[in-house]
This record gives sequence, C-alpha cells and structure tokens, in this order.
Amino acid sequence: MTTLTNEAIYVASRPAGIPTAENFRKDVQPVPAVKQGQMLVRNEWLSVEPAMRGWLADANNYSSVAVGEVMRSLCVGVVVESNVDGFSAGERLMGWFGWQHYAVVKPAAVVQKVTASDIPPSLYLGVLGLNGITAATALDKIGGPKPGETVVVSTAAGGVGSCVGQLAKSLGCRTVGLTSTPEKVKACHEQFAYDHVINYKTEDIGAALQNACPDGVDVYFDNTAGQISDSVMRHLAIGARVIVCGTASIAKWDPPPMGPRVERILLTRRARMQGFILFDHMDTYGSYVSQLESLIRANKLTYREHVTDGLDTAMGAIEELYRGENLGKRLIRL
Amino acid sequence: MTTLTNEAIYVASRPAGIPTAENFRKDVQPVPAVKQGQMLVRNEWLSVEPAMRGWLADANNYSSVAVGEVMRSLCVGVVVESNVDGFSAGERLMGWFGWQHYAVVKPAAVVQKVTASDIPPSLYLGVLGLNGITAATALDKIGGPKPGETVVVSTAAGGVGSCVGQLAKSLGCRTVGLTSTPEKVKACHEQFAYDHVINYKTEDIGAALQNACPDGVDVYFDNTAGQISDSVMRHLAIGARVIVCGTASIAKWDPPPMGPRVERILLTRRARMQGFILFDHMDTYGSYVSQLESLIRANKLTYREHVTDGLDTAMGAIEELYRGENLGKRLIRL
Repeated sequence: MTTLTNEAIYVASRPAGIPTAENFRKDVQPVPAVKQGQMLVRNEWLSVEPAMRGWLADANNYSSVAVGEVMRSLCVGVVVESNVDGFSAGERLMGWFGWQHYAVVKPAAVVQKVTASDIPPSLYLGVLGLNGITAATALDKIGGPKPGETVVVSTAAGGVGSCVGQLAKSLGCRTVGLTSTPEKVKACHEQFAYDHVINYKTEDIGAALQNACPDGVDVYFDNTAGQISDSVMRHLAIGARVIVCGTASIAKWDPPPMGPRVERILLTRRARMQGFILFDHMDTYGSYVSQLESLIRANKLTYREHVTDGLDTAMGAIEELYRGENLGKRLIRL
Repeated sequence: MTTLTNEAIYVASRPAGIPTAENFRKDVQPVPAVKQGQMLVRNEWLSVEPAMRGWLADANNYSSVAVGEVMRSLCVGVVVESNVDGFSAGERLMGWFGWQHYAVVKPAAVVQKVTASDIPPSLYLGVLGLNGITAATALDKIGGPKPGETVVVSTAAGGVGSCVGQLAKSLGCRTVGLTSTPEKVKACHEQFAYDHVINYKTEDIGAALQNACPDGVDVYFDNTAGQISDSVMRHLAIGARVIVCGTASIAKWDPPPMGPRVERILLTRRARMQGFILFDHMDTYGSYVSQLESLIRANKLTYREHVTDGLDTAMGAIEELYRGENLGKRLIRL
C-alpha cells in the first residue's frame, strides 16, 4: 500500500468569542499505520455545529478540544482498512473522525453504522444526526409537548429548530418559529409548516408573541438565549418548559452578560428551564434515529442542507454559522 | 347568641415593593350570620408568609388578594358554630381564615383538621404548615436529593430553609446553609445541624462555596434569588437541580432587575431550574404532613417560632420578615 497523506484542520488557538478561520490551521501529515483495534476511515462528509464554539472556547467544556488537535467533528466516511472485529472495509460509518480526509480511529469513535440504502448518507450528520436527534430527544425528554400546546422555537429555520418545529407539529402542537430573514421566514412557512413565524429583526417580538401565543408558551425550545429569549420568557404559560439547547445569540460568556432575572417568572409560572446536551443521552440515540428515519421515508420531515466543497471551507464555517448565513444544516463535502 | 364583632386587617393599597403597615388598615365589623354550608371559626394563630408580598403585589399572582379584602392568611382556629356536615363546634382547623379574629368560611377554606393532641397547634402553620410542607414537597419532587449529594439552602435558618436543611441531612446529604447574622449562623450549626454554614454578609461567598462544595452543588434550594443565588449558580455540579421557591432578596420586580445570564450555566451543567408553588401540590399535602409529624415526634426535626401577640402586630410583620429580623416561623397569637 502506498503511503497516504492526510490533509487536516488543526486548532491553532482558543477563540475569545466566535471561532474564526484564524483559530485554525491546515497541515498535511502522513496517515499513521493502522494498528490492531483500529481502522482507517476516509471521510466523505464533515459537520459544522454551533456547539463547536463551546468545545473550542473552554477547556472545561463537556466536549473540549485542545489546541494542536485535529478539530473535533462528526463525519460520515467509509472504512478503507479495518483491524477491528465487526467492522469491514467498505462499510459506511458516522462518528468522531474530525475535520480531515483520513482518520485512524477506534470503535469508540463510531456513533453508528450507516446502512440504509434509500437515505442520503449526509442526512446522518443533519436531520438524522446531532441536529435531528438533539431536536427529537430534547423535545421529548425535557419539553414533553402535549397536543394543543404552543411550542416556540428560536433559530426556527436552522438544523435543530426546523426539526423541532416539524416534530412538534406532528405531535399536534401549535408551532411558532422565531427567525431573522425574509428567506428564512419563507422556509419556515413553506417547508417547515410553522403555524406562526416571527421575524424578530423586523417585528415587535413582544406584540408578535402575544398575538401568536394568546394562551402563553408551553414549550420554548431555545437555541439562542439573549434578548430573543427574554421576550419569550415573558410569555411563558403556567407549567412551561424551557429547553436550553444553545446560546447562539451570545458571542461571549466571560464575563457573563447581564439580562433580566428569570427567577420570578420561573416561580410564578411554575416553569422549568433545563440545559440539554445530547451526549448525556447517547443510550437512546438509535431509537430516535429510527423514529426520524420513518418520518423521512414517509416524506413527513423536510430538511435543508447548506453544503460547501473542500476541506478549506471548514475553517470559516463556524463564524458563518453564527452570522446566520446558513439555511439548514451546514456540511462540508470532501 | 349575642352579636359578635370581628376585628380584621384589610388590604388598603397594593404595595410597590415590600408591603408595610401602611398597606393595611384595621376595621371592626359585626360577624355575619352563619348560613347553611358555612361555619364560624375563631382564630387562635395567624401566619405571616414571605409569599404574601406576591399575593399583594400583583393582581395576576397565583394567590392574589384584592384591595378591600381581609388579608389572606393561613390560620389555626376552633370551630364555634357549624352548618356543615363533617365539621363540629370545638374542632380545631388549619385553613384560609385571614388576618382576623373570626371567619365565616366554607369547607373549601379548610386545609386540614388538626387532631394530634401531642403536637402544639401552631406547628401546623410552620414546620407542619406551608413552610415544612413546601420544604418537604419541593425538596422531594424537584430536588430529588440522593445520599452523598451536596444541598445548598438560602435563608438557611428561616422557616422553610431550616426544614430543608434538616430533611436533606436526614436523607444523607451534605448540607450547606447560607445566612446573614451570627445568631442565625449559630442556629444553623446548633439547631439545624448544617455541615457548613456561610454568612454571606461577612464572608467571601464564592470562596466559601468553593470550600464547602468542592464537588459542586447538586441541589440548590433557593429562597432568595439575587446575588446570593448568582454565586451559587457558578458552583452548580453537572445535573444540578435549582428549586426556585422564593425571591426574598429582590425588593422589586417591575422592571425586572438585571443579573448574570444563566443560560450557559444551565446548558454546560445540564442543570434544571424550576419554580415551585405549594398550591400546585395540595393533593400530596397530607402525606408530607404525616412524614414530618413522625420526625417531630421522634425529635428529629427542630423548628423555631417567632411569635408576637395581638392582631395589630400583623400589619408590620411582612416588612419585618423581609428585613430578616425573624428567627424561624413568624406567627401571631390572638
């Protein structure tokens, strides 16, 4: 076998706020030998996640990545060579293979085998990956929406949000999406079937929420935090559940930015506000994949992908994500 | 029967912040006739609750009281005359009889009959009343403390807090009390058996929490909100539960005061913050009373009462409560 070289994106420095291309560097190294218990995977698709900001920002993050390492990422790739029982060359996997062309990994890096021949593999990084499974798991386990309840979603057209909206709708909820551009408003209406859509950049969000949620907000799926969430909090119904899933609108947490205190709202509405990280729920990952695969096959779950080509496009991708320039799941095709 | 007159404390105006004596007025009226389905109760004990601020402040509060009404309060009293099946003259009741000497009420106003002859009746307004049952219910249903976990309590020497601390200790938790005077620190150590006590007015609360909770805070029973809570939030352990039970340190919520945003803490610690109001849990009230009666009889639950004599002492009592001048449950004896 000829020596393979591997082009990879390394973490060059910890970002102070949103990671930019300057926090990464590209390097080419030989692919190391594949030892017993390891396999070589050739990546086809790389993922870009809002959560990457947290992984990069803080050494104490639940999924921290160190300076000097290949950038941590979920990927879809094909096994080239396997020295692991149960994995064979040619199999397609989804797992933690990093922003690079080739990864030598142990089985622990694999999240799932991708075996369905009727579903595009890239979906396992999006609507059937972290985004979709985050949406399904958090909505189910923390939100617990009941038919007829009102579910509000921030970043309503995003990878997670668009899935939350459709799942809540399929459960018989009234869905209200918060988003930021006319194009996303259109997608929320036409693709993701929200009952109400609010453009928080052009509308009076308080008045719009009052109009869209006359009985209050039962479930708030929060991907943004910040002023958008402050507005939603003021409209919580008695017994509301707030799923804290992301903080996309806050660029810097050190020192923590100030906002209106939530204690009185939580008390008088007997509301619950709870942080959600999918990695605590990997034991149920497969069952939510199956549930969403059924919806995909039945054409009941619409998704959007925003694909760029080539490893070089990864470096600026997190920054673009936080600028709100994406419509749907951000992916890199190799 | 001669005509009885009734001295009562009426709500005179809505307070802007903490209710003071000026928000009330005393008046004397004849006791009305006791109709079918009603009974006449002579009050022996009146309660003063921190929650009364909320009842008075906001017409939309869960337990709002209107200007011109007798001040809403739980009381212990004796039935003088009954036109209700199942209630007889001479029986002692705990219920919503108001800040007055006599109340004509329907059975719906009764929370429970007080039948134990070996327990002082005033306890049914304190450690066996809203305070104790709030402590037991919220700690159990929202906190869910496990043996070995660290439980932090604000207003640790107060009516609710002192009960929380002792219940958590009896469940095998490490207990840390936050309080404000040397006298209360002493009570927390000697009466309520906290493992650690922090005087947040004299100590560096951040350093003291770090020292007292090296593995973080698993359950925070919050009766104060504000800066005290901000400090505790920074020490939450993964999977922490924050019970939002009171906001004693915040004098005014309109407009809401600003504080450090909690979203990132809730997210990275996968923590839950939830408001608790006992009135949502009245179906389990009796079972928690029985549980606490057993602890009282076994001398395993210590309590303090702060008693003043006479109806007139009620009017300034809420203000005194918020000045932190009480040690234990604030009661008025008639």
